[in-house]
Amino acid sequence: MKVGIKHMMDFPLTLRSMLERGEKLFPKKEIVSRTLSGIHRYTYADYGQRTRRLSSALQTLGVKSGDRVGTFAWNNHRHLEAYFAVPCMGAVLHTVNIRLSAEHISYIINHAGDKVLLVDEDLVPLIENVKDQLGSVKAYIVMSDQKELPPTSLSPAYSYEELLQQGDPLYAYPEDLDENSPMGMCYTSATTGNPKGVVYSHRGIFLHSLCIGLADTLGLSERDSCLPVVPMFHANAWGLPFGAVWYGTKLVLPGPGPTPEVLLGLIEQEKVTLAAGVPTVWLALLKSMEAGDRDTSSIRAAVCGGAAAPRDMIKTFETKYNIPFLHAYGMTETAPVALVSRLKSYQEAWDTDEILDVRAKQGLLVPGLEMKVMGEKGEVQWDGQEMGELLLRGPWIADSYYNDERSQTTFSDGWLHTGDVATVDGEGFVKLVDRMKDLIKSGGEWISSVDLENALMAHPAVFEASVIGVPHPTWQERPVACVVLKEAHAGKVGEQDLRDFLADKFAKWWIPDRVVFMDKIPKTSVGKFLKRAMREMLKDTFA
Amino acid sequence: MKVGIKHMMDFPLTLRSMLERGEKLFPKKEIVSRTLSGIHRYTYADYGQRTRRLSSALQTLGVKSGDRVGTFAWNNHRHLEAYFAVPCMGAVLHTVNIRLSAEHISYIINHAGDKVLLVDEDLVPLIENVKDQLGSVKAYIVMSDQKELPPTSLSPAYSYEELLQQGDPLYAYPEDLDENSPMGMCYTSATTGNPKGVVYSHRGIFLHSLCIGLADTLGLSERDSCLPVVPMFHANAWGLPFGAVWYGTKLVLPGPGPTPEVLLGLIEQEKVTLAAGVPTVWLALLKSMEAGDRDTSSIRAAVCGGAAAPRDMIKTFETKYNIPFLHAYGMTETAPVALVSRLKSYQEAWDTDEILDVRAKQGLLVPGLEMKVMGEKGEVQWDGQEMGELLLRGPWIADSYYNDERSQTTFSDGWLHTGDVATVDGEGFVKLVDRMKDLIKSGGEWISSVDLENALMAHPAVFEASVIGVPHPTWQERPVACVVLKEAHAGKVGEQDLRDFLADKFAKWWIPDRVVFMDKIPKTSVGKFLKRAMREMLKDTFA
Repeated sequence: MKVGIKHMMDFPLTLRSMLERGEKLFPKKEIVSRTLSGIHRYTYADYGQRTRRLSSALQTLGVKSGDRVGTFAWNNHRHLEAYFAVPCMGAVLHTVNIRLSAEHISYIINHAGDKVLLVDEDLVPLIENVKDQLGSVKAYIVMSDQKELPPTSLSPAYSYEELLQQGDPLYAYPEDLDENSPMGMCYTSATTGNPKGVVYSHRGIFLHSLCIGLADTLGLSERDSCLPVVPMFHANAWGLPFGAVWYGTKLVLPGPGPTPEVLLGLIEQEKVTLAAGVPTVWLALLKSMEAGDRDTSSIRAAVCGGAAAPRDMIKTFETKYNIPFLHAYGMTETAPVALVSRLKSYQEAWDTDEILDVRAKQGLLVPGLEMKVMGEKGEVQWDGQEMGELLLRGPWIADSYYNDERSQTTFSDGWLHTGDVATVDGEGFVKLVDRMKDLIKSGGEWISSVDLENALMAHPAVFEASVIGVPHPTWQERPVACVVLKEAHAGKVGEQDLRDFLADKFAKWWIPDRVVFMDKIPKTSVGKFLKRAMREMLKDTFA
Repeated sequence: MKVGIKHMMDFPLTLRSMLERGEKLFPKKEIVSRTLSGIHRYTYADYGQRTRRLSSALQTLGVKSGDRVGTFAWNNHRHLEAYFAVPCMGAVLHTVNIRLSAEHISYIINHAGDKVLLVDEDLVPLIENVKDQLGSVKAYIVMSDQKELPPTSLSPAYSYEELLQQGDPLYAYPEDLDENSPMGMCYTSATTGNPKGVVYSHRGIFLHSLCIGLADTLGLSERDSCLPVVPMFHANAWGLPFGAVWYGTKLVLPGPGPTPEVLLGLIEQEKVTLAAGVPTVWLALLKSMEAGDRDTSSIRAAVCGGAAAPRDMIKTFETKYNIPFLHAYGMTETAPVALVSRLKSYQEAWDTDEILDVRAKQGLLVPGLEMKVMGEKGEVQWDGQEMGELLLRGPWIADSYYNDERSQTTFSDGWLHTGDVATVDGEGFVKLVDRMKDLIKSGGEWISSVDLENALMAHPAVFEASVIGVPHPTWQERPVACVVLKEAHAGKVGEQDLRDFLADKFAKWWIPDRVVFMDKIPKTSVGKFLKRAMREMLKDTFA
């Protein structure tokens, strides 16, 4: 039998098919959107028509196949319309992160070459601020609850609602779009330099959307009321909007600057079953829940990603509030879901502490992707101890950064090198232990800076601690700890005290050779330790 | 941005990736297999190694990429090994239906050109019976619990267990297999003539396996204990073995000729959560359940397809046994799952009768496929009334029959013409009402023979009834009913009595013009009405 020819229907995996199922099978299901003027509700039938109107209007404005259309918006129904209107017509949805610096905003809009920019009314000033730097934008569309265009210095500027009124609600999407065509873009921050662009294909998002509907991952379903707190400009809001439209899931979009109070109100009123956000969102929600008597009983899954969720927080959600906590892992480069920490059936019989240990890990590889964790000597043992860099591959993993020379170090040999250092336990659960660049390489072995930091910060006298690798003539690198003591303890705790404190917790060769006491540790603008600066500062310690 | 080039990783969707996830992440999970010598248990770790041994042994026997390897087997662990061993090495798994006539068995083995045939020990006589007609088979492998080859006239014949012992448990599968490559074949019976072959691609089965893992379809999951009663030679056992290996689902394979008692025993012992079979299997199970005190409380989904399940049976499962009943629809040509009758969330608030009406329909289109229902005047209204032929397309739908001139009528304009006549209700649920060839076309309108038959069979005097369309000079066709009366009523009920009985149930123009009383209705070998013969017999009724 011939190989290399198609043996079933040559049916492209595109967003059109997803949209049309949602429209046709679930016309009565609701999309709830919090806007500047209140709660807006409509159905998937309305959504389908307005989405088609938007595509038609964009076509009238000159948007063609492959053109980039940027969005600068909160999680709301208009943003959701763009999520399908732009890709289904063959154009490319570029979701611009509204929290970037002015410099980075103009960089990525220019780098992507956005032809049209859709801007939420209250975010218009941020774009006005950089408009003189924008070279590619031919039209600005202001998304407002009012039909009239608000006053703006953007030009040419159009009213979203006016354009939609002129658009065709029956606009027909092409059925022969190549599934490998680009459907979207999102930029991810780099340690240094400008953000890097990731391109998503129709095929990738189609498959990712199937993945998050699996009973074994997030189980996104028609039965859910889904609240994506994670922004739609951040890795596709973890793909939830795409899946929700396909499955006819009720969507609850929390709109501009949602506070914990707003979110808890939506959870109660809309009987949210699945909410998704970063750990700081869940921490803030938890604080509000602890303060008042709120009804969160509808939640069947608290999905958390973007950073490691603290074990104690997971415990509170699970044991005090009976909210199942789903830890997940992904990156902009992975569309993003790659790991989900769902218990295996037989782990449910484990005791609470063991279960929480599992839940605090980043999780199991989802169906559709492949991984390996590469240490100094090849693939690591699955013993929960040996460290290696997490490598991923699969149909919803990017294969390069868009027009960017930095692609080569991240994408090589067919794998995405995540830059995350991980261990894998005997059950296959991945746990992140460090970033590759912060890992300390001593005598051919790896030492996790994060583990040492966490241990040091558990010392009663330590306010904060950061551990870095410093060049060493014999061992390549040796760990050095930078420590800020609590005011009351300043000068009363010495280097040897802290080394002794660590002695029974780690192998001897893990113990930092030096502890440097500081008044404060240099940090990035988002509050992370600026390890690069510390390494520079201490580079001659062992010279 | 360029369209038509790949914008994410060029990662092929193949069974290798599915197998490797199952092996690596769920090495402790169990596969239970009923064989001639009892219950056999092993883990996915064992399964992976034996599967690789099988591929290695087949390679030694000369099996190459694209070669067909036939199986002639019950649902057991060796058959499951072949399910992945054959496709992962690039060869094509041809599951031969053991229930076919000798003539059809030899036809399809020759037509597929099977190079190797794997045969269950107790089924060897059926193959010995046709061996002189088999032209392509170069090796027979007998699957037995014993290592020694049982006496057989097949030649050359090998012992499965002996071959496996010589095989390589670390056999590495190619990573660059084209996803469009053929991975399997299954033949489907034709109304007349020889069976028609359907070819499955890796891509198609990969996507179908994702589909049945969705929370909104079957929700197949690691948590399940899955009992496929539907044979593995029948449309891939509805894809359950493929999904189960990927997700690490406990599989319970019921082996040779499973009786209701055997099945209920397995359900109790292995705490089966999802079982799948045709309506006759569920009817037989129900009979046994009614007779004794059996524990079926572990079942979360009774999946039923292959033919329409009677509403009363669904009701008994749902209301008396509290077993959620999942009606599904598909064909060999659709890999097979295309529709699943899962309630929408808001339908759960409907009353029991309305819910049963929904459950008795074939269901909602699954994510990934597209459908249209084409009546005389184009797409039908979704009113539960207008009839049309169900057309399907999507990535796991066949695009032709293998080397068969009959492809053209079934596959045209990019759609599979299922030959099934359906209505669609306002919620998008499809209900089959007839076969296209049995539909009666009268004056440009369609009449369902099945609806009339069901109504007639509800008459207390009627033993059985079949309704056919007979050529008519004015109306193109008119319905004629063929009726067998119960013995006690013979001669006491006339044509007009039955026409009157139908009068308040259908529009006037649906009422059969003639009722022909018969001693018996001609039937096919599997007990279906032989309407072709009746149409021939009565063709001059209105001449």
